[in-house]
Amino acid sequence: MKFVPRSLQALVVELARLPGVGERTALRFAVALLKGGNHRTQLLQQVLASVSEDIGSCECCGFWTEQNRCPVCDDPQRTAQKLCVVRDSPDVLALEKFRSHPWKYHVLGGLLSPLSGVGPDKLGIGSLLTRIRTGEVQELILAFDATIEGDATAYYLKDLLKKEAPALQLSRTALGLPAGSSVEYLDPSTLESALLHRTPLD
Amino acid sequence: MKFVPRSLQALVVELARLPGVGERTALRFAVALLKGGNHRTQLLQQVLASVSEDIGSCECCGFWTEQNRCPVCDDPQRTAQKLCVVRDSPDVLALEKFRSHPWKYHVLGGLLSPLSGVGPDKLGIGSLLTRIRTGEVQELILAFDATIEGDATAYYLKDLLKKEAPALQLSRTALGLPAGSSVEYLDPSTLESALLHRTPLD
Repeated sequence: MKFVPRSLQALVVELARLPGVGERTALRFAVALLKGGNHRTQLLQQVLASVSEDIGSCECCGFWTEQNRCPVCDDPQRTAQKLCVVRDSPDVLALEKFRSHPWKYHVLGGLLSPLSGVGPDKLGIGSLLTRIRTGEVQELILAFDATIEGDATAYYLKDLLKKEAPALQLSRTALGLPAGSSVEYLDPSTLESALLHRTPLD
Repeated sequence: MKFVPRSLQALVVELARLPGVGERTALRFAVALLKGGNHRTQLLQQVLASVSEDIGSCECCGFWTEQNRCPVCDDPQRTAQKLCVVRDSPDVLALEKFRSHPWKYHVLGGLLSPLSGVGPDKLGIGSLLTRIRTGEVQELILAFDATIEGDATAYYLKDLLKKEAPALQLSRTALGLPAGSSVEYLDPSTLESALLHRTPLD
């Protein structure tokens, strides 16, 4: 980056760490911030500071919150009998984006990945067991990514809960055709699962 | 943005001001920053601070610099006889990206735009005249956007310099087919100009 001042280069490096942002886009962002003047850059510094200071995890479910408990756990409309277990906080946003569900959530903070050194002790499984041991939870819906890590976490929890809470109903999100997809272009494992778990047309 | 903590929402608002970034991408960026941990957000805060504190304009040409004079003005390989006039600092980066030119630059800081209230007094035209009055500059190359504002600024400078420095050679970047373009899809004014200023095939 010839003739780009050193401090602007440092900003480009940081912005290029954002997902899907290359050096070219990062330079465009950095130039826009510089042109926006001191007010813009100071505002961004402030909101960055308050994000890293104010946002923590809900003591009950692990979802983002600025208090001790998150608004989902405190929602009186939701039942504690059903619990939807997800990998991370953005998954809760995705699931609640277009429709409010009747259940509460539990955020694991990751999925099992032995190769990356993520074992059960690094995930919020202890706090999940604590919630289950209260006896209130009757159904657990595992809404994990359809990946090897998602599969591994689902099977681990299934084994664990068979002993811990044999009466608990356990389900996982269906694997099948995403809306708008063509059979022609789908991978064999998705197609196989969609065929295997075909639903009756009533 | 249901269930998105207030401080994260504020970060999304700021990030969505970046060029070409919508709310969805801004949320993706904000989540990535939050997941990156305090170290990442603090680093970004620091580089933002140093960008707004350290980067100023070169006292000679107006280009970005962290000193009084920019590295382009101080480059002994460049002649002061030729001056390339541009709208803004990123234009210098674009022009120097793939090839070093022998000339120096003058950054106006904008283009004439009476409708947006940008008159000659808001641009670096005074400092351009100061440089020309030293008598060193023999050729001025106007490398402005091919827009109404670019045209207006070019004609304004032409009129001004006819009186100020009648001996000065004045040229503007050619208007024609961009590399890789198809005649079929080009707009008529580009085509007309490309035909009018056709170059001899030697």
